[in-house]
Amino acid sequence: MTRVSTESAGAQQTRSRSAILDVVRAAGTISRVELTRATGLTGATVSTVVRRLIDEGLIVEVGRAESTGGKPRTLLRLEPRARFAVGVHLDVAGITYVLANLGGGVVARWRTAGTAGDGPEDVVARVVAEIGDMFSRVGVEKDRLLGVGLVGPGPLSGGTAVTWVADPASSGMAPFPFGEAIEAALDMPVLLDNDATAAAVGEYWAGGIESTSALGALYMGAGIGGGVVVGGVAFRGASSNAAEIGHVCVDLAGPECWCGARGCVEAVAGPAAVVAAARARGVDLGPAGRPAAEDFATLARAALRGDAVASSILEFSARYVAVAAQTFANLMDLDLIVLTGPAFGIAGSLYLPVVTEHLERAFFARDSHPVHVRISSSAHEAAAIGAAALVLQSELAPRPTTVRMPAERHVASVAVPAPGA
Amino acid sequence: MTRVSTESAGAQQTRSRSAILDVVRAAGTISRVELTRATGLTGATVSTVVRRLIDEGLIVEVGRAESTGGKPRTLLRLEPRARFAVGVHLDVAGITYVLANLGGGVVARWRTAGTAGDGPEDVVARVVAEIGDMFSRVGVEKDRLLGVGLVGPGPLSGGTAVTWVADPASSGMAPFPFGEAIEAALDMPVLLDNDATAAAVGEYWAGGIESTSALGALYMGAGIGGGVVVGGVAFRGASSNAAEIGHVCVDLAGPECWCGARGCVEAVAGPAAVVAAARARGVDLGPAGRPAAEDFATLARAALRGDAVASSILEFSARYVAVAAQTFANLMDLDLIVLTGPAFGIAGSLYLPVVTEHLERAFFARDSHPVHVRISSSAHEAAAIGAAALVLQSELAPRPTTVRMPAERHVASVAVPAPGA
Repeated sequence: MTRVSTESAGAQQTRSRSAILDVVRAAGTISRVELTRATGLTGATVSTVVRRLIDEGLIVEVGRAESTGGKPRTLLRLEPRARFAVGVHLDVAGITYVLANLGGGVVARWRTAGTAGDGPEDVVARVVAEIGDMFSRVGVEKDRLLGVGLVGPGPLSGGTAVTWVADPASSGMAPFPFGEAIEAALDMPVLLDNDATAAAVGEYWAGGIESTSALGALYMGAGIGGGVVVGGVAFRGASSNAAEIGHVCVDLAGPECWCGARGCVEAVAGPAAVVAAARARGVDLGPAGRPAAEDFATLARAALRGDAVASSILEFSARYVAVAAQTFANLMDLDLIVLTGPAFGIAGSLYLPVVTEHLERAFFARDSHPVHVRISSSAHEAAAIGAAALVLQSELAPRPTTVRMPAERHVASVAVPAPGA
Repeated sequence: MTRVSTESAGAQQTRSRSAILDVVRAAGTISRVELTRATGLTGATVSTVVRRLIDEGLIVEVGRAESTGGKPRTLLRLEPRARFAVGVHLDVAGITYVLANLGGGVVARWRTAGTAGDGPEDVVARVVAEIGDMFSRVGVEKDRLLGVGLVGPGPLSGGTAVTWVADPASSGMAPFPFGEAIEAALDMPVLLDNDATAAAVGEYWAGGIESTSALGALYMGAGIGGGVVVGGVAFRGASSNAAEIGHVCVDLAGPECWCGARGCVEAVAGPAAVVAAARARGVDLGPAGRPAAEDFATLARAALRGDAVASSILEFSARYVAVAAQTFANLMDLDLIVLTGPAFGIAGSLYLPVVTEHLERAFFARDSHPVHVRISSSAHEAAAIGAAALVLQSELAPRPTTVRMPAERHVASVAVPAPGA
């Protein structure tokens, strides 16, 4: 019995088109002959697809290369301004937007107030209005927009509804179809993902990282998360919920975590735990009731100014985060960890030496290769950049492992259990 | 500047050949027209490659399928006995061999004494002799052998020499080029890998697992290891040392581990720790000095007979192994964990309920999907089956992510630091 899936001619054409776009993007400039070799497609297919891409304005001819005989070869390159994608990172502490072009360049970025306290309909209405504002300000025609990448914290689920939570540590909300609602309002595709996975994609996409790297993004915002990109491909596991490094148990007798487990590194040493410890020890963090991320920033600035109590609390946190980094590196066999997310954007320099020293001593395969650790240069917006990159990748290189969503892309869920659930 | 790697016509042919073999194997039977659709290759390429594969005896024609018009289509299938691969699992407690055919069927299996106390030259000489014995007994012509997969515990490194260790917990050996030596003596390719990764491949290959599964093999032999296969592809990380689940820290103040870190789950609750605890509590395990795996088996049998002390020691171990399983599932987003390796082959039923119950409560993405846990039905030989599968895959589907070795395949290293290093 035959159990092989067959592919339609249309799907084959889409794949050829994406393969060619991706190779042109990676190459910078390239000839048709080189494209044929690099993609394994026939010369006729490459000619046809390239002609169409030129007609659509996605590729341009840019002069001729020297040749080793025969006529000089015409070089092709991507036209980055031909298409754009919006990346949106929803977080209790702020909504971050980026507009990226087809080449991955960020052409606009901005940040608005967080979602704390807002109902899901309010959040959808705001995101739709704020994306509309941006279009008119930046002057990009809507038909050049490929779509919107929308990322946020918490586990994704493949159901028909979306749960969104104002603050995973303190309150829950009923399921709400975020992606569907925004897709309907904007009339363009919306891709959903976990923000920490998006941050890993964003770090990779933002450049400066070897294409062969095994990269782990250790993300600290309101909580602790992670994302992994190996050889340019995001590792997603069964349901796009991989790399939940904040929920590694570091103490079997530790405090209960909101996730239902005990002794998670997030519960022991994440921003909320750090802030609670600081308040308990009388550190002045200003009025209570602000998001933990803001209090954490206040505490980190105190430590950076030399406050001894603030420093000792963050040192304690760093020791546990270092253990989480060891687990992360040992399980994923990473050769690069980037400390990213708003909390590391402020406190990264306090964590970096502790994490680095710990990995030098405790990374299991250290005789094979080191694990480099660095602080992100776009810690506050890596997740939003990654969100835009998800959309660009779906045009450039729609590999299942790169952009696979848990279910239909617009009905994927962001589900965080209510506390105590 | 062009930075695209070009592929030779020879490499393209190899890729087409492998793609066709893999699709035929997965399909069971398939026509040339369906092959063309499934591989995306041209009809002419499929015709040429299939003709060659028939000439080589790897594929046979097996009658005709009904057709919806036009002439009936000839069906093709793999000839499993056309090629074979040997899988060898080196372990201090025993060397396990399997002979697998091209279809993945295990046609012979046997086990000889462990490597404890042997020098590396002795191990090489024994493996070469024992493979030779097997060939003559089973009656497979050597020209039908694709090669040997050789797997063992410990980190791999991509250097030019191989370190092998008789017992990671008690002694070290100087680097020795195992793969190279066996390859030279047998005059056939040798692929090296970590035994726990091979076990995951073996569990997948041995069947009964959905091709879309995110499978984690939690391996317990002399120590604790892991391997991951998602969608049929092994996750390898930077250097084929991924999924080192035994070296997850579960207690920052825990005992020092031979790996150099502190509080690793292997040091707290692995077979050697369990055996030491049992001896300290006066459990009669027979004479000292045997491999920990044998003592562990004795202890497990006592617990299975109802011995209260043995049961409580294994219950303690199971609680920590369950935490490691939680970390494994949370980081890899697994939907299936198979308890495999000799220790789980004996004690699996004591660990299964504890691990299952813990994951039901503590797996982070449990609202998205459950993590099923089962005991392997080939716990003692999964690593050897996986070793053979590595070789078969290199013929059937040489995808970089499936069979990538740290460096040249025959010079990859199995490096375990000496104790205290």
